[in-house]
Amino acid sequence: MSKEKQFVTEITPQSEDFSRWYLDVIRKAELMDYAPVRGCIVFRPDGYELWENIQRELDRRFKETGHRNAYFPLFIPEHFLLKEKEHVEGFNPEVPWVTEAGGEKLEERLAIRPTSETMIGHMYARWIKSYRDLPLLINQWCNVVRWEKRTLPFLRTSEFLWQEGHTAHEDEEDARRETMRMLEVYRDFAENVLMMPVIAGQKTPSEKFAGAVDTYSIEAMMKDGRAVQAGTSHYLGTNFAVAFDIKYLNRENVMTYCHTTSWGVSTRLIGAVIMVHGDDRGLVLPPKIAPTQVMIIPIGPPKAREPVLAKANELLDELRRAGVRVRMDDRDDVSPGWKFNEYEMRGIPIRLEIGPRDLENGQCVLVSRVTGEKTPVPLDRVAEEVPAMLERVGREMFEKAKRFMDEHTFDVDTLDELKAKYEETRGFAYAGWCGSEACESRVKEETGATSRNIPFEPAVTKSRCLVCGEAARHTVVYARAY
Amino acid sequence: MSKEKQFVTEITPQSEDFSRWYLDVIRKAELMDYAPVRGCIVFRPDGYELWENIQRELDRRFKETGHRNAYFPLFIPEHFLLKEKEHVEGFNPEVPWVTEAGGEKLEERLAIRPTSETMIGHMYARWIKSYRDLPLLINQWCNVVRWEKRTLPFLRTSEFLWQEGHTAHEDEEDARRETMRMLEVYRDFAENVLMMPVIAGQKTPSEKFAGAVDTYSIEAMMKDGRAVQAGTSHYLGTNFAVAFDIKYLNRENVMTYCHTTSWGVSTRLIGAVIMVHGDDRGLVLPPKIAPTQVMIIPIGPPKAREPVLAKANELLDELRRAGVRVRMDDRDDVSPGWKFNEYEMRGIPIRLEIGPRDLENGQCVLVSRVTGEKTPVPLDRVAEEVPAMLERVGREMFEKAKRFMDEHTFDVDTLDELKAKYEETRGFAYAGWCGSEACESRVKEETGATSRNIPFEPAVTKSRCLVCGEAARHTVVYARAY
Repeated sequence: MSKEKQFVTEITPQSEDFSRWYLDVIRKAELMDYAPVRGCIVFRPDGYELWENIQRELDRRFKETGHRNAYFPLFIPEHFLLKEKEHVEGFNPEVPWVTEAGGEKLEERLAIRPTSETMIGHMYARWIKSYRDLPLLINQWCNVVRWEKRTLPFLRTSEFLWQEGHTAHEDEEDARRETMRMLEVYRDFAENVLMMPVIAGQKTPSEKFAGAVDTYSIEAMMKDGRAVQAGTSHYLGTNFAVAFDIKYLNRENVMTYCHTTSWGVSTRLIGAVIMVHGDDRGLVLPPKIAPTQVMIIPIGPPKAREPVLAKANELLDELRRAGVRVRMDDRDDVSPGWKFNEYEMRGIPIRLEIGPRDLENGQCVLVSRVTGEKTPVPLDRVAEEVPAMLERVGREMFEKAKRFMDEHTFDVDTLDELKAKYEETRGFAYAGWCGSEACESRVKEETGATSRNIPFEPAVTKSRCLVCGEAARHTVVYARAY
Repeated sequence: MSKEKQFVTEITPQSEDFSRWYLDVIRKAELMDYAPVRGCIVFRPDGYELWENIQRELDRRFKETGHRNAYFPLFIPEHFLLKEKEHVEGFNPEVPWVTEAGGEKLEERLAIRPTSETMIGHMYARWIKSYRDLPLLINQWCNVVRWEKRTLPFLRTSEFLWQEGHTAHEDEEDARRETMRMLEVYRDFAENVLMMPVIAGQKTPSEKFAGAVDTYSIEAMMKDGRAVQAGTSHYLGTNFAVAFDIKYLNRENVMTYCHTTSWGVSTRLIGAVIMVHGDDRGLVLPPKIAPTQVMIIPIGPPKAREPVLAKANELLDELRRAGVRVRMDDRDDVSPGWKFNEYEMRGIPIRLEIGPRDLENGQCVLVSRVTGEKTPVPLDRVAEEVPAMLERVGREMFEKAKRFMDEHTFDVDTLDELKAKYEETRGFAYAGWCGSEACESRVKEETGATSRNIPFEPAVTKSRCLVCGEAARHTVVYARAY
């Protein structure tokens, strides 16, 4: 009993200190460890497998929408970064530079890629000759580096893993169609794989990607009411095409600039998933990306152990054959109670308990990590029930997160009202915006909230700018963000 | 006809200039392009997909042998690299250094990882406490950088992609067992997936990994008779455990150093596969990693096109459902002859031809890339015949490569004999070795051949050192190598 108590108290309650809770839980669940390099982490196997499962699901969607993977160099020559003005201003301050290699000083510094528009733009200019080569639809899975001042495991690290899609098109219409299609891939993936409700919309000009014409994002709400930008898709116009000379002979035999896009999600999704679903007992992992979906725990006294273990092993094999990621903890020097806590903390969606009395009744018990509900299931129906229950657990996670987001979303008419709201609660604020950068930055100065995006489907439509009171051109979602 | 002729002559014949052939074929088949960074290449989609297929096959084998993936930082602090004496001497000359980041000069230079023994050793020291934590079996898929003087696409590039397994064990026996198990995984993979015969054996001390006690390798023979080291597995003893303090409480409650291993293969496998199997018409890709396994080409005059296309599309769907990576080229502005050449050059294992006469006969024709053999197949048996033929094509590739290797393997008694042999032929030379580094390096100086390894199963056993004539301690395979 004291062991179990000690166990629970090792994780700071969310209500006490949400940041502390987050840092406690990701280390205790062995998702990561701090690396001996500033702002870098190690992705331990259970953390990395979340990324592998995210990759597999996204990669399939990218390929289904006609993209292929490729790999471009880590190093970007300095003069490349300088070619697109906004781009260099946005990224240069965060770049690490290689100045020596092979025992010699380099003639030109090499940037470690913070993103690859420049390198890929350079290559596209070589590959694209005619409209027959378009659209060119390529994605890259890789590491990137941005030397951030404030870092937070998964959410903001100096080096991180991501995918970056880069596409080139004949005209604006086709490029904009691609931009929106990939944003929709992200939205669908976030809501139906990560079980994480998001708000899709357009970034304001001050928040868009350095070098983009328009940036679109999906924004998720963490359990402390703060936002995480969970994916972005950019229409780059001809900005990079002009900078890197990506031209093609069009159907009228005229050399024309391509319109390009880029879009990406990163390992920060792991942090978002944890902060959206976790609770005071630890992680709650979406079944579709959980490294272990079901943990089998045999229970009962030692003398009754043998037949229980035999049946538990049968279930293990059966579930494996059914494609379930299942493991068993049959250690006899650790109590079932300790195991229950341990695997709840690790966020495993379903616990399967089986003991001597269950055996007599020809059943076992499935326990949902989300609701704690216990469901007895006949032994011969386990292989059908478990996949169905994984689906159900996932839906429950989405609904719970959606409810939380709805309960922490409100609308305000004035800046004072927003400030007052933030005294009593936290979350997303819908507000009108006149379109001026001054009003937008005023909100940030006075409340710490930034414009997240201009939702495609706003919950409410506001008619006046919350700062200046002029007519609103857009309804914006404001929130404090990671 | 002139188009077809022009096509063939764009690739330099292997017999004329093997290096030229290689560079011609990898660019023409769009596997890669040169990047604007010294010694770096871009992996284009057809090149990268070879790597994705290699990854999938290997990753499954790693997981089946109990390993999990993780991710460690790209940057290695300088003082880490200095901790293992042999290691630093081996790698320091090839390291690129980050000296500035985020607009400031760094206090300590950061190496871009050439390999991760040091970083992973540091983390293992934190994670491993007791024998219960062992063995620790982790693999990493990542990019690494070695600033090489001479580079060659895929085979030796400044940045490359690889996997590096790193494991820690209770004792020498268990660590050596792991070292050999992973070498066997590589051998099996090379021979049964890449269809590339290899010689497995132990490296001589002068050729072993910097920091290893023993290094084992698989060596493949290219079509110019030169060797490529296709995979290595290292028993590191306690060298890195001592340098990084990887200790554990053993079963007798005594703090003890771990024994560690590491093992890796890289994107150089892509280069090896091309040089082992390719011919004057271009690539020949092993079916198990070919991005496209079957190319369907509808033939016949325009007026008979419609029913042919309808049936070809049916076959396309049917083969896809059967899990075959199949595509169709139904362009009508390009001749079938041009397409035949194009997809032979791209190394697609099977061409499926279908025309009006085939339709009448209820058949299509499968053409093997390896033998050129044409096999008529009834339309209702295509979905069974194609997978069987892919297996057969793969076996034929292995046998052909094995025959080539056998025909270019010989044994010699003296250095003069080796020199004379190299005047008339090329390939692998079995020779006796007394065990002295002096004799080994003498061979290199006088013939350009290096010791590849000491084969576990030598074709012959030699009793005298080819240089000094003393009693041979080992029979070594010598070859010129990439």
